Amino acid sequence: MSKDKGFVTEITSQSEDFSRWYIDVIKKAELMDYSPVRGCIVFRPDGFELWENIQRELDQRFKDTGHRNAYFPLFIPESFFQKEKEHVEGFNPELPWVTEAAGEKLEERLAIRPTSETMIGHMYAKWIQSYRDLPVLINQWANVVRWEKRTLPFLRTSEFLWQEGHTAHEDEADARKETLTMLDVYTDFAEKFLAIPVIKGEKTPSERFAGAVDTYSIEAMMKDGRAVQAGTSHYMGTKFAEAFDIKFLDRQNELQFAHTTSWGVSTRLIGALIMVHGDDRGLALPPKVAPTQVIMIPIGPAKMREAVVGRVDELFAELKAAGIRVRVDDRADVSPGWKFNEYEMRGVPLRLELGPRDMDNGVVVLVSRITGEKRIVKQDELTGEVSKMLEETQDAMYERAKQFRQDNFAAVDTLDEMKSFMEEKRGFVESGWCGSAACEKQVKEETGATSRNIPFEPATKKEVCLVCGDASKHTVVFARAY
Amino acid sequence: MSKDKGFVTEITSQSEDFSRWYIDVIKKAELMDYSPVRGCIVFRPDGFELWENIQRELDQRFKDTGHRNAYFPLFIPESFFQKEKEHVEGFNPELPWVTEAAGEKLEERLAIRPTSETMIGHMYAKWIQSYRDLPVLINQWANVVRWEKRTLPFLRTSEFLWQEGHTAHEDEADARKETLTMLDVYTDFAEKFLAIPVIKGEKTPSERFAGAVDTYSIEAMMKDGRAVQAGTSHYMGTKFAEAFDIKFLDRQNELQFAHTTSWGVSTRLIGALIMVHGDDRGLALPPKVAPTQVIMIPIGPAKMREAVVGRVDELFAELKAAGIRVRVDDRADVSPGWKFNEYEMRGVPLRLELGPRDMDNGVVVLVSRITGEKRIVKQDELTGEVSKMLEETQDAMYERAKQFRQDNFAAVDTLDEMKSFMEEKRGFVESGWCGSAACEKQVKEETGATSRNIPFEPATKKEVCLVCGDASKHTVVFARAY
Repeated sequence: MSKDKGFVTEITSQSEDFSRWYIDVIKKAELMDYSPVRGCIVFRPDGFELWENIQRELDQRFKDTGHRNAYFPLFIPESFFQKEKEHVEGFNPELPWVTEAAGEKLEERLAIRPTSETMIGHMYAKWIQSYRDLPVLINQWANVVRWEKRTLPFLRTSEFLWQEGHTAHEDEADARKETLTMLDVYTDFAEKFLAIPVIKGEKTPSERFAGAVDTYSIEAMMKDGRAVQAGTSHYMGTKFAEAFDIKFLDRQNELQFAHTTSWGVSTRLIGALIMVHGDDRGLALPPKVAPTQVIMIPIGPAKMREAVVGRVDELFAELKAAGIRVRVDDRADVSPGWKFNEYEMRGVPLRLELGPRDMDNGVVVLVSRITGEKRIVKQDELTGEVSKMLEETQDAMYERAKQFRQDNFAAVDTLDEMKSFMEEKRGFVESGWCGSAACEKQVKEETGATSRNIPFEPATKKEVCLVCGDASKHTVVFARAY
Repeated sequence: MSKDKGFVTEITSQSEDFSRWYIDVIKKAELMDYSPVRGCIVFRPDGFELWENIQRELDQRFKDTGHRNAYFPLFIPESFFQKEKEHVEGFNPELPWVTEAAGEKLEERLAIRPTSETMIGHMYAKWIQSYRDLPVLINQWANVVRWEKRTLPFLRTSEFLWQEGHTAHEDEADARKETLTMLDVYTDFAEKFLAIPVIKGEKTPSERFAGAVDTYSIEAMMKDGRAVQAGTSHYMGTKFAEAFDIKFLDRQNELQFAHTTSWGVSTRLIGALIMVHGDDRGLALPPKVAPTQVIMIPIGPAKMREAVVGRVDELFAELKAAGIRVRVDDRADVSPGWKFNEYEMRGVPLRLELGPRDMDNGVVVLVSRITGEKRIVKQDELTGEVSKMLEETQDAMYERAKQFRQDNFAAVDTLDEMKSFMEEKRGFVESGWCGSAACEKQVKEETGATSRNIPFEPATKKEVCLVCGDASKHTVVFARAY
């Protein structure tokens, strides 16, 4: 694909400056725009539709695992944050406060929710009386705000959209099972739907959610080798139950604190999607999440235009009826070449071309955004061929991302080894760790990488800590992270 | 249906105290709960699912009419409200203000959005350069906040959920067409999906949206005769375009201001749904919006339980496969009679009973929540019979609501006539109006009723103003309103 035509050249290349490439792509593809409010972005229709597709798919998976949606207030009274000590320490520095409303000063300041454990804990205490009321399996789709110092569109914004699941259970076993079930839901969703391979594991204590007993995450590698935490799931023990008095009469008629969990993914998934799959030509969207899966472009001389467009419209109707998300661009004042670049930049997985000769031959040309592969397929087999090529594209994108991760992954024994890898490749490092916060801190100070998680399925089994050389307690994945 | 069993007696009757009936029903059916934040409610799963069903249906209708979703920031800088004079006057008294964030005082206060004309106007000014960029047809699903003095769950809460469509057009004709198209979308949705008959019309100047040139509404009658404004659509002229500098080069290459519209419905539709259809037994939900359309209850002696439940499960699978929203309550520790009351209270449109004798006869019993009608239908015709009865129930609920409105509607010639009708019936009144704000105000002062709208299709054509007796300019519907 020629890169010197039209505006494609306006996108900075990934190798030149990955951060600028990212901003160029999301602006040019009209996924977002900056807003006049510090750290807040506007999700433009093409960006928001990615979120709608993510939301629809995840929502179905939540419902399939027995959850229901609810909605809790945006505002959280200041006193609520005092009830769980670690939680307040974690979130207080980032809270925006409503102090006045309708011309009057409020008696108690109200925070804009950064997450809803406190409000939901307060309500669960009212709703849960007996073991018969458990489990409570509720999810919320909502906006939350964390007043961030450094922001990056989609990946870290002051206001963002997310879902937060909050569940309450009779005992630890049931709550832990839920925590891991939802981690599995996220993993399967990321890999099958977004074509993003993830590393599933447990966070080290220093990286835990504020107030959690255990935090689990899925971690994805971007094309610059940095990590994005793509989803988290927390087992809270009885900490929030004790703070908010969520008690129930158990099967032995004794009062117990409920065990709670929470889990969430956010619009940062959009950022990950772009940074995992995009290239110097722009976005590259996996077919399952792509708002438009197939763009149809009629080609050929003006005198044949009417006939070609007519046939394109017929094929469009067929594909649409088969549930394929398809669009036609039959504008006469824009050249096919311009359109090819445009839809490649916008990441549409498949392009369908139809010209006069294809009409004579009863075929169309299908071109993959990812591999560049061209297939000439018979019009009367179109739906099947398109479906097949979409599936293959989805699989290929996952495999490609997995291969990239493998190429930028190293198992190391020492901090020096890690440093030289990070200088050269900037990828993920797996190593042994003694379990001390001091060693973890030293890794961060010397490499800029943080512990991403303790993978459930490490690639290796290292015997010693990369920093102190003592016996390894956990195998840890380290990376610089967004 | 006996009313003296179980908890059904806990619901205050509508005739005794309609407001208490309303609160009893929504609390008992677990649609909502009060939150610790003044004027904000919690949407519990059974309440939120009504909103999800409303949202899914409306979203499809918006997309079918060419709109796309986007998301704009929650926060609006104070200076934005100064740009459109009427808008600031209308909304300023209700705004909550964020004055501090992350431990620091903000340089400029941020309002929590009460509606997003200003923020969206600001962004449209950046996006719209040429007539080729028009129309812009965007909708947003969001939470908004208006710090209300008197609140009522669903109908008037400080924070609520809604959608706000915001469109920009080349000229007045196109913008006015959009305004009325969306009013039609709301009308059809309210009548066909919610089974709520509405009066479609134009607001009088005193009831216009702050900053609009013209405001249109659909108005519904609750069972206490009061009105709920169920949806509004506004033509803004070029007012917001001038305030936010939304200019474009037209087809003659001249700079013009865009013509804008906005339109919205909110979670108050849930309140309307309850107050239009509910009765002394509790909720009554039209099948199309009901989260559960059919509740299946196995009955008969314990020794037959296994066989009956087994057959119920088979029929459940059949109904579910046909796309019917069905649930089984096969709890053994709760009597069928208790369950009958429970699901009637929760408004489930159809109950399916199956006992040993029905099994022998190859039939089931279907009972309508609304009419009480019982039908014995063959099991091998179940899906068709259920679908038919759901459709009939939907239609019957609409007709019943329409009849109720007719029975509580009067065309009057004078204010005295209106007053005596309002004392007796508390319904809607249609009358002539000279067009003066003074006469409109007098109606309100003497009856508590406000002008709801100037209906497109008035029931009558009155020649004189009900207050001053001058020639009528408009036929107006008046009512006390929520």
